[in-house]
Amino acid sequence: MSEVYAARRTRLRERCNAAGSAAALISRPANVRYLAGAAPQRAALLIGKREDLLVCTGPPDEKPTEGRPDEALPVHTLPGPGPAGDPAVAAADLAASQGADSLAVEEHHLTVARHRAIRSVAPRLRLADLGGAVEQLRVVKDEEEISCLRIGAEIADQALGELLESILVGRTERHLALELERRLVDHGADGPAFPTSVATGPNSGRRGHRPTDRRVEEGDFLSVCLGATYRGYRCEIGRTFVIGTSPADWQIELYDLVFAAQRAGREMLAPGSAYRDVDRAARQVLDSAGYAEGLPPLTGHGVGLEIDEDPQLAPAAMGKLDACVPVTVEPGVHLPGRGGVRIDDTLVVRPEADGGPELLTITTKELLAL
Amino acid sequence: MSEVYAARRTRLRERCNAAGSAAALISRPANVRYLAGAAPQRAALLIGKREDLLVCTGPPDEKPTEGRPDEALPVHTLPGPGPAGDPAVAAADLAASQGADSLAVEEHHLTVARHRAIRSVAPRLRLADLGGAVEQLRVVKDEEEISCLRIGAEIADQALGELLESILVGRTERHLALELERRLVDHGADGPAFPTSVATGPNSGRRGHRPTDRRVEEGDFLSVCLGATYRGYRCEIGRTFVIGTSPADWQIELYDLVFAAQRAGREMLAPGSAYRDVDRAARQVLDSAGYAEGLPPLTGHGVGLEIDEDPQLAPAAMGKLDACVPVTVEPGVHLPGRGGVRIDDTLVVRPEADGGPELLTITTKELLAL
Repeated sequence: MSEVYAARRTRLRERCNAAGSAAALISRPANVRYLAGAAPQRAALLIGKREDLLVCTGPPDEKPTEGRPDEALPVHTLPGPGPAGDPAVAAADLAASQGADSLAVEEHHLTVARHRAIRSVAPRLRLADLGGAVEQLRVVKDEEEISCLRIGAEIADQALGELLESILVGRTERHLALELERRLVDHGADGPAFPTSVATGPNSGRRGHRPTDRRVEEGDFLSVCLGATYRGYRCEIGRTFVIGTSPADWQIELYDLVFAAQRAGREMLAPGSAYRDVDRAARQVLDSAGYAEGLPPLTGHGVGLEIDEDPQLAPAAMGKLDACVPVTVEPGVHLPGRGGVRIDDTLVVRPEADGGPELLTITTKELLAL
Repeated sequence: MSEVYAARRTRLRERCNAAGSAAALISRPANVRYLAGAAPQRAALLIGKREDLLVCTGPPDEKPTEGRPDEALPVHTLPGPGPAGDPAVAAADLAASQGADSLAVEEHHLTVARHRAIRSVAPRLRLADLGGAVEQLRVVKDEEEISCLRIGAEIADQALGELLESILVGRTERHLALELERRLVDHGADGPAFPTSVATGPNSGRRGHRPTDRRVEEGDFLSVCLGATYRGYRCEIGRTFVIGTSPADWQIELYDLVFAAQRAGREMLAPGSAYRDVDRAARQVLDSAGYAEGLPPLTGHGVGLEIDEDPQLAPAAMGKLDACVPVTVEPGVHLPGRGGVRIDDTLVVRPEADGGPELLTITTKELLAL
């Protein structure tokens, strides 16, 4: 694995040097993990002219679930905590003492106060903005990363499948969410990829709904959104069910509509498709049925070391999909007071020659009555 | 409740004006919640010369567990997401258009990128640093806040008590942690106050240990640290037990020592005690028994809307305790390869006339053999 991390750092170093910075300071945890194999708390990674260095406040944990730091990477452990023990500041100090004259930092992650502390320990260092350079490198995944996502999706499918076999009526959203999270861990997840969402009745179909004490009732829509973290990689699945023997007509109609929108989005996933076209394909189906208002601002997003990464599949997004980019497709409609439907898959963009988009979350999308 | 929030904002406004800023922009979520009653995602609070304003990206949730925004506070909802929809930037824009010439911002929370965006929408606004002004206001709690902490502590005591009655040998750290978190919610917590730590055998006694798949064995030390969030307020309790019928001599000795250190710390809790003296009282007991090395950097910390707030009870901390400040006292010793002991309580500083420190976490601190 060590070569993988070294290769990623080399790509970043080349970008930095091309942009005129001798060195780069990575502080955003997911970016540190991507480049170093692990992200101990508050660690910072220095990408030097020749040598790189991981600066930590304590010995890195060696648990497989949290990643292992690349063995080829020197680690510098600070003696104590507190502002004097800020790894980002210490790393900048080291960069200056190694003769770097410029340092690119993550201005979208560093606070103004930490940035000022860096300037004060290394006043001669010219600070530049690295921007989202590491986030950009992270968009296209290698097969090892995709395999972690695939295993995470299998775990989420299993947890969801088991829930569907249990009795649901009378249980609260909060209990169902906790049970799903326990099942994720039972099946080998590091933990949930994000707070599990269980929404019943009038809450169903709301994006990011946080579980309440409402109990499942006959006739409810039940929408569930969950994901597993596996070796740091986070996937997502969302499904909507009906509680009771037969769904009402409005429920079948709404479900079919959201399903059609989600399929339209999935069918647009191909290398070269514009992000906004994927969004438009799904959005158009809902728009033309009269649900233009109240739609969520995006149809999907990238997943990886974070659950919400680039790209954003949204009306104003710029850019085109590449092969090996994992994304969600998750349109939904929520009718205030009545509830709604969301259907959410994680897929990997693949060329048509390879069979088209690879669906990672394989739980059925038929409307099940539970 | 509305008057409470209004009074807090008035105190902050006075501090700001005294420091020469006409207005203040609060972006750190716990600070927004403290001053506005709730902290919708990415919301920002503008403390104006006369009027205050909460800026959100969507309608605030109205769930009791997440707080309700003060009804007397005007809410401005932004139309869309994205950088144009950053509530902090929009609030600064509003401050400028209302004629403010200076704005104090939370430089320890705002990123460099967001700070720049504020400068660019409101170039004539003089930006100052609010520093930890709101965090300072939050240190001393009112009785309503303490009552939330007291209920949270009762919930944590209940969850821990039930765990102790179940069979533990053979179960993994991760499962025990998940079960504790489920019990917290069962008893009415909003959720865990922080990731529950369960540490067995050689892991026991490690501060912030993240649960692994190690199973509880006969003869182990088992150390558990958990807390409940109740109406936003977070408490903490930690205990260490022995698994099996009779603890080994080294276990009894180590336990008695940590217990003595923890008691020494608790006994120093009084209005006017220096933070560092509380730390020293506990630390000295462990030091003089030969455990100076490897001790955690602090003996305790404040709790409230965040689990780790001011004050820090640490060797270099400056300041003195006031009445109505809730803190943890949590010394511990971890012997690499063997395990260790941590004992952690949440207490509220009270004058001696009121009976001295109020212990919120009342689970026994005898060494129980389970």
